Amino acid sequence: MQGKQGSAAATAAEALRQRILDGTYSPGQRLPSATAIGNEFGIDRGTAARVLAQLRQTGFIITKPGSGSFVRTFEPIRRSFPSRLTAWREGQAIQDADTGKRARMVEVAVGEVLASEAVAAELAIDTDAPVLRRSRRFAVDERLVQLADSFYLLDLVRSTPIVYTDTGPGGVYARLDEIGHAPVRFTERLRARMPMPTETEALELPGGTPVIAITRMAYDSEDRCVEVTEMVLDASAYELEYHAAI
Amino acid sequence: MQGKQGSAAATAAEALRQRILDGTYSPGQRLPSATAIGNEFGIDRGTAARVLAQLRQTGFIITKPGSGSFVRTFEPIRRSFPSRLTAWREGQAIQDADTGKRARMVEVAVGEVLASEAVAAELAIDTDAPVLRRSRRFAVDERLVQLADSFYLLDLVRSTPIVYTDTGPGGVYARLDEIGHAPVRFTERLRARMPMPTETEALELPGGTPVIAITRMAYDSEDRCVEVTEMVLDASAYELEYHAAI
Repeated sequence: MQGKQGSAAATAAEALRQRILDGTYSPGQRLPSATAIGNEFGIDRGTAARVLAQLRQTGFIITKPGSGSFVRTFEPIRRSFPSRLTAWREGQAIQDADTGKRARMVEVAVGEVLASEAVAAELAIDTDAPVLRRSRRFAVDERLVQLADSFYLLDLVRSTPIVYTDTGPGGVYARLDEIGHAPVRFTERLRARMPMPTETEALELPGGTPVIAITRMAYDSEDRCVEVTEMVLDASAYELEYHAAI
Repeated sequence: MQGKQGSAAATAAEALRQRILDGTYSPGQRLPSATAIGNEFGIDRGTAARVLAQLRQTGFIITKPGSGSFVRTFEPIRRSFPSRLTAWREGQAIQDADTGKRARMVEVAVGEVLASEAVAAELAIDTDAPVLRRSRRFAVDERLVQLADSFYLLDLVRSTPIVYTDTGPGGVYARLDEIGHAPVRFTERLRARMPMPTETEALELPGGTPVIAITRMAYDSEDRCVEVTEMVLDASAYELEYHAAI
């Protein structure tokens, strides 16, 4: 999309997006056809189709073959930090504290692995020292939305239900609490980027969907790091909220 | 990249990425040529070139025409919440509290606009009521990294330096403090997505670079929302860190 058509296409994309944001086109509503959009903005049908493709890639619309494009009914998973990390005190899983759509664990694998440099640095152990890893996948309905690997000091958790796939009410944090290492402080470090091929495959991501990569550290009351979690989120499925007082 | 070549390409991309992450290939180091990569992973030169293109798009390497591909020396802007939001107490700008690379304001425009639905809802005023907007662009060296629009209640800030382009030491928060509305609590709400054409243009983003869209609300001690800021960050330039105790 270059030159005159390109600049008219950018105007059209921006105008349509604005109408979606301000509610002129409401969630679920059908958008005008590529032909109608072309007429309105003075661009050819092919360029109008590319404008629609762009709105689709940026998550504003979905297209149903044969029936047109519709404003996406966007109901993200709303993930609120740090309140969600207190859910274990009521015997809940972290995901149960999220609002909007809620992810559930669809796969879990537990085993011993050698610590990567990054994980070892956070846990203050030697690189390649053995750690316990809990690998999980989360889905909303049938759609995969998150991969998560958590790492623990083997000596700390070896004789707790943290080594089981089912860790019981309140999950890992409740079990850490029982051995005197309840998490009381958290850090989340995040970046957004395009997915690697393995992530595209594991999360079944459509083209043009970025991921949010988060590393979370949980610390006990003695400032010891008791958990490192590396997460990869389908960015189109999540809204993250962070709260703090100063 | 489909079939046998495609799966070998995915293996190659993952292996190379792993070597970058574990330091086998260190920052600034030259990667093997497409031919050498092709030989190692049993893929043709064209496929190997596409593997390199993918590592480039995902920000792991940079390519210098004529001299090869190099592991990217990644020095992001490190933005730590909420500690950066206390910088005004020492007369600093928020950006001065960031570490790693630091963004500086390269453009600022101040004026009256009508509140959007989203801004009006947070400020608890009518949609289309006039508000003060401060529009800014931030850059690192010559590279644009962030767009930010902040909105304020006109009645609250009309007779303060907040209406000037230069708000003085400690910036807007120090001025809000002087009129008895110091921010004491913040919420950041964020999503990651591909940029809209206007954002690609405004931030001069290379293809395949997502943005992080953040809305931040600042509240005073009476829980009144005194500022709404809508930011768009070049995702490849930032690492965000969030801290909290429970």
